[in-house]
Amino acid sequence: MTWADYFATTDDDGRARLTHAAVAAIASLEQHLDAPRSDVAPIALHDLAATIDICPPKGTALAQVLSELGATVWANGVVPTNPLTIAHLHPPTTVSAVVTEMAIATTNQSMDSWDQAPMATALELHLMSWLGAQIGLPDSATGVMTSGGTASNVLGVTLARSFAAAKLDVDVLKTGLPPQAQHWAILCSDQAHFSIQRAAAQLGLGRDCVLTVPTTPAGVMDIDQLDETIRHATEAGRIIIAIVGTAGTTDLGAIDDLAAIAQRARAVDAWFHVDGAVAGAFVMSPTHRHRLRGIEQADSVTIDFHKLWWQPFNASALVVGDGERFNLLRVKSNYLDRGDELDGMVNLVGRSLDTSRRFDAAKVVASLRTIGRNDFGAMLDHLVDLATYCGEAVTAHPVFSLVAPIHGVTCVFDAPDYDEDALRAVQQRLLVRGEAILGRTVIKGRPALKCTFMNPLATTLDVDHVLALIARELPLTVA
Amino acid sequence: MTWADYFATTDDDGRARLTHAAVAAIASLEQHLDAPRSDVAPIALHDLAATIDICPPKGTALAQVLSELGATVWANGVVPTNPLTIAHLHPPTTVSAVVTEMAIATTNQSMDSWDQAPMATALELHLMSWLGAQIGLPDSATGVMTSGGTASNVLGVTLARSFAAAKLDVDVLKTGLPPQAQHWAILCSDQAHFSIQRAAAQLGLGRDCVLTVPTTPAGVMDIDQLDETIRHATEAGRIIIAIVGTAGTTDLGAIDDLAAIAQRARAVDAWFHVDGAVAGAFVMSPTHRHRLRGIEQADSVTIDFHKLWWQPFNASALVVGDGERFNLLRVKSNYLDRGDELDGMVNLVGRSLDTSRRFDAAKVVASLRTIGRNDFGAMLDHLVDLATYCGEAVTAHPVFSLVAPIHGVTCVFDAPDYDEDALRAVQQRLLVRGEAILGRTVIKGRPALKCTFMNPLATTLDVDHVLALIARELPLTVA
Repeated sequence: MTWADYFATTDDDGRARLTHAAVAAIASLEQHLDAPRSDVAPIALHDLAATIDICPPKGTALAQVLSELGATVWANGVVPTNPLTIAHLHPPTTVSAVVTEMAIATTNQSMDSWDQAPMATALELHLMSWLGAQIGLPDSATGVMTSGGTASNVLGVTLARSFAAAKLDVDVLKTGLPPQAQHWAILCSDQAHFSIQRAAAQLGLGRDCVLTVPTTPAGVMDIDQLDETIRHATEAGRIIIAIVGTAGTTDLGAIDDLAAIAQRARAVDAWFHVDGAVAGAFVMSPTHRHRLRGIEQADSVTIDFHKLWWQPFNASALVVGDGERFNLLRVKSNYLDRGDELDGMVNLVGRSLDTSRRFDAAKVVASLRTIGRNDFGAMLDHLVDLATYCGEAVTAHPVFSLVAPIHGVTCVFDAPDYDEDALRAVQQRLLVRGEAILGRTVIKGRPALKCTFMNPLATTLDVDHVLALIARELPLTVA
Repeated sequence: MTWADYFATTDDDGRARLTHAAVAAIASLEQHLDAPRSDVAPIALHDLAATIDICPPKGTALAQVLSELGATVWANGVVPTNPLTIAHLHPPTTVSAVVTEMAIATTNQSMDSWDQAPMATALELHLMSWLGAQIGLPDSATGVMTSGGTASNVLGVTLARSFAAAKLDVDVLKTGLPPQAQHWAILCSDQAHFSIQRAAAQLGLGRDCVLTVPTTPAGVMDIDQLDETIRHATEAGRIIIAIVGTAGTTDLGAIDDLAAIAQRARAVDAWFHVDGAVAGAFVMSPTHRHRLRGIEQADSVTIDFHKLWWQPFNASALVVGDGERFNLLRVKSNYLDRGDELDGMVNLVGRSLDTSRRFDAAKVVASLRTIGRNDFGAMLDHLVDLATYCGEAVTAHPVFSLVAPIHGVTCVFDAPDYDEDALRAVQQRLLVRGEAILGRTVIKGRPALKCTFMNPLATTLDVDHVLALIARELPLTVA
């Protein structure tokens, strides 16, 4: 190998080399196992990893390296396209995104500055405007791609913090939290994602700054309880800096009444953030989009393309209704922001918590253009239909009991005749044997099983299969 | 198209579909232009982006979508392999990483929980242990991959904040910044990356919490000034919670005296973080690694694989000398951390600020195994040699003047006979015309030009070419 062989270039030789390597990489993905994962024990996987000599003195031929990765790593991974991989909001990915990842990696644009990503900057901004329009935000809306829902939520809450501080004439990024911050509160439901607490922790406010509002049995924020929480907090001298509505909770898929929350947020002059990481995709479904009513009033919205938009990790976005609000983050760097930019030379570092950042927008655009709105919406609707079918099957089943009505793509259920250890053991045993990767969570203090439908190619037969598999396992675990 | 055509699967049909699409994606990268970028005006790129209909009702054939992306997006991007693309720490990427990106995206493991990434978890941990060993950290070292140097620095400073709070018996993640935090200080040099200030801003401490230590003319932290800063801060009642050493400053490539800083950090019981985003790669060079002496005493180290390890964005790591320290971050989530994990079932969400997270470790391992240590070190040394050659050429040149001695892969220089506007105009004009993408920064209040050598395939002829191009442009801009 010469050094030139190591690098991805776009001349004729380079493209030939890339093609050759791409074919080998794809061949290495061959799965000899028709299961969600191999049955190799967790500890044995660490032993297997330890056999890999990461950087030998002399390099190994690429074909050999790819084939080894296939045999050791890909063969022992989770297969997200397997219909029995249903634990998490962990999607199968589109061909268009997968191959665009290769173009992204070859061209390696960095989104922090225009001179590392001229057209990429323009395309990301175009995608963000489009997304703002889908959400129904005003024309002033724009956004930024982030590494995930947690990062998007952290960015949303960061903006809310700066906004609250600015009202006190404090530049919190410069001088730190003002003394008044000890009275600040962030409200979200008790089913909101833990990244809201993590955001508060990261921002120096602490998780205790988050007041969780009780939910109805369906898992949506109880608006009377929200009013109650606001009243109590206000009486206790707390300043509510942000209210977070969840569009699609992690476990139950519940969508809060965003219009009602928007109205409360306005009334107390709090930032209204919507965590739409899960159900934000419903903006693409004529059937389900009405359930997001109120999202168009948000100050900021999290959308995870790497969930129900079938993108590979990472691909998330934080969209802000009033794009000027990104000025709350503005940083100045001599080497990135030079002050004499021409019209159209935008350095996106100014609206991101990252500096170097990959051009994930390209794969999202490639996928949306390939699939089109009709099929996209139909595939989303199919996933909700699968979860609904699962809910009906659970309800009709002699052993299972539905924990909450179906709102989205998850079905959470209990087997009330069995003790907690039995429920835990079923999930664990199927995982260890590689037979099924089920979700397991805790609802009202008791373990519950969860199926998450992310794969539009799954059918009701797969749902039947999963439930039969779980039922088969349960008797074995009775004490 | 049927729905099945949209998704990347690893069965025979799926791999055939992927191969077909991969070949088309690579073909779309063909560059018809032998320049670092096209000369399309910045504002025209936004108009071009606006012509892309992101999600038409009916999808467009993938081959068509890829070909359009080629003609609009890739044709108007920056070409990182062009020897005249020398503005930033923005590398060409390896073939092995590029094609492994495709495998990463197809298999789509998510690093937050073991049941979404069983073998991927083991491999990331193996890579992190290996990296700790290269740095010379104790066997207790481990780490986590992050989305970039900024994220790694933020994570390092986050741990330092929790560590400082724990000494006061405060769980800062739970209860927020204690009152004592108003006296906290973080020290770094005035050439440290701006992400240290951003970390302080994010964490609620504010940028003002960062005390910058003056540097020598070579750009390294002045240790006498560090002692002075510590003395002043201590006298003023400040508690130094962290001292950051920089291994490779962004502009000058300067490496602080890490051993001296380590000793000061120990003396004041502060967390010692090393930002090795740039020069951390020198652990792989027998020629240059001695310059990192002291890095092995760090509490945490940032390493950017997407800089001098030639990985596509994003691929960074934060390595911690004592792996137990990650417990400072520990979060509990019912759906990810179940409490009955078997031996070897590690949920990496516990050591990350992200939740969903891509399996970037795979591409790093594929690249290191393919290149091997000998070539890796030789390519690094070549880049330093190129920068050194550039420094000599600048020194010998009638028009240019070197701003600081060469420490790494950057060469920063002035043209003292020209006014500031002339210097600015040269960089801007070459960028707009797409002829060269030069770095431009501010050193001692005056603009300076910067060449950053990231491409091991570049030669001294390319250096001569760049300098000739700049010299050719300068006379045009004399007032």
